[in-house]
Amino acid sequence: MSIEKRLEELGIQLQTPAQPVANYVTTVQTGNLVFTSGHGPIGDDGQQIKGQLGTDMSIEAGYQAARSVGIGLISTLKAALGDLDRIQRVVKVVGFVNSAADFLDHPSVVNGVSDLFVEVFGDKGKHARSAVGMVQLPGGIAVEVEMIVEVE
Amino acid sequence: MSIEKRLEELGIQLQTPAQPVANYVTTVQTGNLVFTSGHGPIGDDGQQIKGQLGTDMSIEAGYQAARSVGIGLISTLKAALGDLDRIQRVVKVVGFVNSAADFLDHPSVVNGVSDLFVEVFGDKGKHARSAVGMVQLPGGIAVEVEMIVEVE
Amino acid sequence: MSIEKRLEELGIQLQTPAQPVANYVTTVQTGNLVFTSGHGPIGDDGQQIKGQLGTDMSIEAGYQAARSVGIGLISTLKAALGDLDRIQRVVKVVGFVNSAADFLDHPSVVNGVSDLFVEVFGDKGKHARSAVGMVQLPGGIAVEVEMIVEVE
Repeated sequence: MSIEKRLEELGIQLQTPAQPVANYVTTVQTGNLVFTSGHGPIGDDGQQIKGQLGTDMSIEAGYQAARSVGIGLISTLKAALGDLDRIQRVVKVVGFVNSAADFLDHPSVVNGVSDLFVEVFGDKGKHARSAVGMVQLPGGIAVEVEMIVEVE
Repeated sequence: MSIEKRLEELGIQLQTPAQPVANYVTTVQTGNLVFTSGHGPIGDDGQQIKGQLGTDMSIEAGYQAARSVGIGLISTLKAALGDLDRIQRVVKVVGFVNSAADFLDHPSVVNGVSDLFVEVFGDKGKHARSAVGMVQLPGGIAVEVEMIVEVE
Repeated sequence: MSIEKRLEELGIQLQTPAQPVANYVTTVQTGNLVFTSGHGPIGDDGQQIKGQLGTDMSIEAGYQAARSVGIGLISTLKAALGDLDRIQRVVKVVGFVNSAADFLDHPSVVNGVSDLFVEVFGDKGKHARSAVGMVQLPGGIAVEVEMIVEVE
């Protein structure tokens, strides 16, 4: 089954790809690796999802925010690659979580994006990953994620 | 001398490789690069080493924690590659240090893993590196390290 | 126009390349990718630029600090590659900003390095990028940047 069909089956609608507002781009391909910029979470209302885990955001809300970042990253890759079936492997994911000083469960938040990638890409979606706690993120977003994919 | 022999000579015992508890994996190889997940420190008692530099952990304890992360990373690479002699170069290391707001000596902590890699791999162990301060890390661990190695 | 000539035209003087004080190196090349270590900002006086955005440093000062990190990274690449014209693409930039808990404008700081790379390298300077907020950085520097470039 194609990835597009799989997204449909899962009821996932891609977003309008993020547009950088400065001298950088959302993806760069070098050889058969594509590096993405850090992406933030976008809610159903099209607005950034802001909040801090351990302060004013629950783990479940953080998980959903991370999932929305994943949808945004897939949207960006669709725009960059044309066809998502060109993705051979999700290689690496780094999840930067907006974190209170005493919040300890960053992995449960970043699972939102990891689970999505495996739902969508199957075994090709299984990635190496880091999950870490940030004192703050741009605009107060709840989580920022960057990734590397291998394409054919 | 083989890397296994070198580890023996140094009296370093590999750990049981880390097992992800979610939809990610400890390593992904793409071409001749292997990307690892972020790893945390494990003490001689098999438990995670928790603490924050500048709050309740000394630089020496942080250094030893970082060294134990390095042993864990080598253990993971041994499991993934079968033979550690396949490693041609440690390319990149990022050391995320659990840091009080006024702690300034993250490099001395991350030296624990850098020194280990040069002890074990010699010139092939010399890597590009970043060392940064995190407001918090998963489970309250003292340091998290991710790496990239080149294999033949 | 060669990159060296372009630097001259822009009035940019390269710095003495950073010298690691531990068991790591400033760059590692693997295949046609060069990974750099995290670099900090150096002022006209040759001293590290210290400060925290949102605490004791303005966005404009942070932007200039990030720009100086970019000049340091180019200086390191010149020393590693011999000829900056070997750079085919700036692939990835990660900007770690020393950030107060309520500082939200990390991208405006990291623009200092992004703008520089596009000024110097043109379209080849356009990179994927992440900008994040750190509770603290080594020695209290204002910003730390690591990068990946593709070389021929």
